[in-house]
Amino acid sequence: MSSGTISKFFYPNSVAVVGASRDPSKVGYQLLYNLISKYKGRVYPINPHVSEVLGLKAYPRITSVPDDIDLAVISVPASTVPSVMEDCGLKGVKNVIVISAGFKELGTVEGIEGERKIVEIAKKFGMRVIGPNCMGVYVPKIGLNTTFLNPDRMDFPEHGNISFISQSGAFGIAVLDWAAMRGIGISKFVSLGNKCDVDESDMLDYLVGDEDTQVITMYIEGVEVGRRFIKSLKSTTPVKPVVILKAGRSEEGVRAIASHTGSLAGADIVYDAAFKQCGVLRAYGMDELFDMALSLSLQPPAQGMRVGILTVGGGSGVMATDAAVSLGLKVPKLSDATVGKLRNVLLPIASPYNPVDVTGSARNEHLLNAVDIMMRSGEVDVIIWIPYFMAPGITDELVEDFVSVVRSVNKELSTPIPVVGAATGGRHTLKLSTAVEKGGIPMYPTVERAAKAAWALCKYGQWLKSKGTFDDYLSRFSKFT
Amino acid sequence: MSSGTISKFFYPNSVAVVGASRDPSKVGYQLLYNLISKYKGRVYPINPHVSEVLGLKAYPRITSVPDDIDLAVISVPASTVPSVMEDCGLKGVKNVIVISAGFKELGTVEGIEGERKIVEIAKKFGMRVIGPNCMGVYVPKIGLNTTFLNPDRMDFPEHGNISFISQSGAFGIAVLDWAAMRGIGISKFVSLGNKCDVDESDMLDYLVGDEDTQVITMYIEGVEVGRRFIKSLKSTTPVKPVVILKAGRSEEGVRAIASHTGSLAGADIVYDAAFKQCGVLRAYGMDELFDMALSLSLQPPAQGMRVGILTVGGGSGVMATDAAVSLGLKVPKLSDATVGKLRNVLLPIASPYNPVDVTGSARNEHLLNAVDIMMRSGEVDVIIWIPYFMAPGITDELVEDFVSVVRSVNKELSTPIPVVGAATGGRHTLKLSTAVEKGGIPMYPTVERAAKAAWALCKYGQWLKSKGTFDDYLSRFSKFT
Repeated sequence: MSSGTISKFFYPNSVAVVGASRDPSKVGYQLLYNLISKYKGRVYPINPHVSEVLGLKAYPRITSVPDDIDLAVISVPASTVPSVMEDCGLKGVKNVIVISAGFKELGTVEGIEGERKIVEIAKKFGMRVIGPNCMGVYVPKIGLNTTFLNPDRMDFPEHGNISFISQSGAFGIAVLDWAAMRGIGISKFVSLGNKCDVDESDMLDYLVGDEDTQVITMYIEGVEVGRRFIKSLKSTTPVKPVVILKAGRSEEGVRAIASHTGSLAGADIVYDAAFKQCGVLRAYGMDELFDMALSLSLQPPAQGMRVGILTVGGGSGVMATDAAVSLGLKVPKLSDATVGKLRNVLLPIASPYNPVDVTGSARNEHLLNAVDIMMRSGEVDVIIWIPYFMAPGITDELVEDFVSVVRSVNKELSTPIPVVGAATGGRHTLKLSTAVEKGGIPMYPTVERAAKAAWALCKYGQWLKSKGTFDDYLSRFSKFT
Repeated sequence: MSSGTISKFFYPNSVAVVGASRDPSKVGYQLLYNLISKYKGRVYPINPHVSEVLGLKAYPRITSVPDDIDLAVISVPASTVPSVMEDCGLKGVKNVIVISAGFKELGTVEGIEGERKIVEIAKKFGMRVIGPNCMGVYVPKIGLNTTFLNPDRMDFPEHGNISFISQSGAFGIAVLDWAAMRGIGISKFVSLGNKCDVDESDMLDYLVGDEDTQVITMYIEGVEVGRRFIKSLKSTTPVKPVVILKAGRSEEGVRAIASHTGSLAGADIVYDAAFKQCGVLRAYGMDELFDMALSLSLQPPAQGMRVGILTVGGGSGVMATDAAVSLGLKVPKLSDATVGKLRNVLLPIASPYNPVDVTGSARNEHLLNAVDIMMRSGEVDVIIWIPYFMAPGITDELVEDFVSVVRSVNKELSTPIPVVGAATGGRHTLKLSTAVEKGGIPMYPTVERAAKAAWALCKYGQWLKSKGTFDDYLSRFSKFT
């Protein structure tokens, strides 16, 4: 299928909510409520029993709507879904999201049969289906939100350049809520549910060409690691990074997946081999998934595996070194020439090696001069900086000045040096870290997480080089930064 | 030395600040400022050039103070430290903290010689010395704070039952600031600096008998893993848990330590063996250090390695299983009898195995009934619960009710079952997680971190059993919970 059809899931001009309800305790109420609170397209509640829902005229059937419908969102009892699907087909709707549960995930004959019917009807009319048993989509750019969570109990993130495809609806929602608090923007969120039709491969094929998506993240449980998936991954990763959190690494985890979704998760070794072969960056938890996505979304890839560490606290420099080395990165000694240059601009008690430790007595200019020298040295490919925003000699101006030095040096270099940061601390530190991040340098609460984020930039740079697309990626990347 | 002397570092009745300054840009100003803002004991600024500092009468020398001095905090230029130490000795001060830097850490002849003099004078007068080149101590219970950080740029945590000994002052401070934001209470914080006298072993020997300390955490770089340290660890861990973050795991990290502190960090394998032999729980980052400390400080140890997982989200159950198994824990199948009991109280779509997945449609009572059955089953030794506070059927009452069920079931069991939680999400989730934690159940933002916290309870329980002190620990533990 063409991604032209898929695009209507994300950019519909009109949406019908089948099963829209006036009862606030029902999914069909909350879903409509969330949808109309931001979405500016045309919305049609479908409900045969009432004439109006949440101030909108309701229609008894989707076929009675006097308008074209780009997207139908279905939230009716499982037994009614097939007939609603037929209606959608007759109405000419090409994109359907089935929120309703009660299908294959039950493992019952009725459930499996119901899901088969959905697929059959979709094929008959040439419709694409997300779900069933899913949360649908969230596209903040146009306010499209088909989830049914109460916004009093969770937040939704702003628009950003990371897309997130989740097999688990609940986990997906929790991540959205967390991302909103963390200040991470989302381009497209999709909860795939039972994947009776649209699956991870469809998403990759679409998102690879999606201008609003810079990084693709996925949470998966059971995926058929077949030709199709491998092919989609292989054509995506040379163009944009794909970071995947795959659950079911252990035998016990695989057993849990079977009783949870009914899907068969193969041996982890198969996924691992496929991911390596396709240049997928694998995450082993939610933190890692978004720590890597964030660095990839804000910073260019690194052209090698050499890390330069610039720190205000000696201990953090040591821990960052440990973390980088344990990930397979190099923390090289700097040349005598570079050490000499650093010595000239740092305090006598500073350590001008790598880690470059400006010490807790440092002032802003020591960090600014040091990062300049390190970036231009040609001896490191990525920099982890570790400011201590509570240090007596550091002032708030460091935020703006550091961002500006990194940006201006990178403009002069033929290949930019990515920079990520780690700042452990409380409220004041968090406030300044957020400001640094707004300036395009991702900041993490621990050096271990920053090291993993740096690793992703190195690993992805290596992959792009092996595919011959490093320069191409860089030129696209530099346009939007 | 007896811990009677060490105790004056934490509970002095009078403190002299040598080098107290009226200039807000000086360490001697900020230090006094922080000290007098909470501490209720008698404080004497020592400064020969002024008659008053921050509203307190200043004395030219410590010998001129007409009162006994329990603790002297020295912040004068390195070259002046020895003569000040002599004065302290003459005055009969037995506890000295040398904040001043400029000693062994410089690696210069003068630095090393200066530090040798400090030790010599301390021996002559029978004084104990923390430092030099340190931040001193923070004891919120009595408001004692000898650090010199500006409180506009960092926060200090409340009193709690975790003590933290840090070789790195900067990292220690960052952790305090973070702990304040995270809501983790601290009993004693000590920045050891160059450790010319007081070291990790002294701290262990004191803290093992300290009623206010339930868990001992340490950040170390170079420690002599000699008889003394091993002996102190061995006599502490059967009584209370010791969690250590040791930097310098990699060769590059060891090199960084050498240029940072001048101390020699031995091969990591030596530390690792010593830690294992002594029942130390090893952390590989700040998150782990305090994630484990928190569970150990709030929950009893587990009597085995079997984990029960109770979740609202299937995906999180799978990931928690993966994380637990990868740490060496077991996620056993539950017996038919227990599965039957669970089935009776859960929704038909729930999965009553392990993980017990109550599903996103669950209501409070499903979690409450399930945890009750799991705790009483005798089939699991620790429980990881994973509420989704944004789920439609979950209300805020769950917090109080869950805490209360866990507490009352544990009162009936001969050996309590510890419970830790994971809740991923945003502001609402954080608010409710904090409330659960106030009820004594530690809550983490990801399942991976909760699994590590559960692991610590299992591993420490195993250690206590091997030492024959499980029951003794439990009886002391149950008194304060």
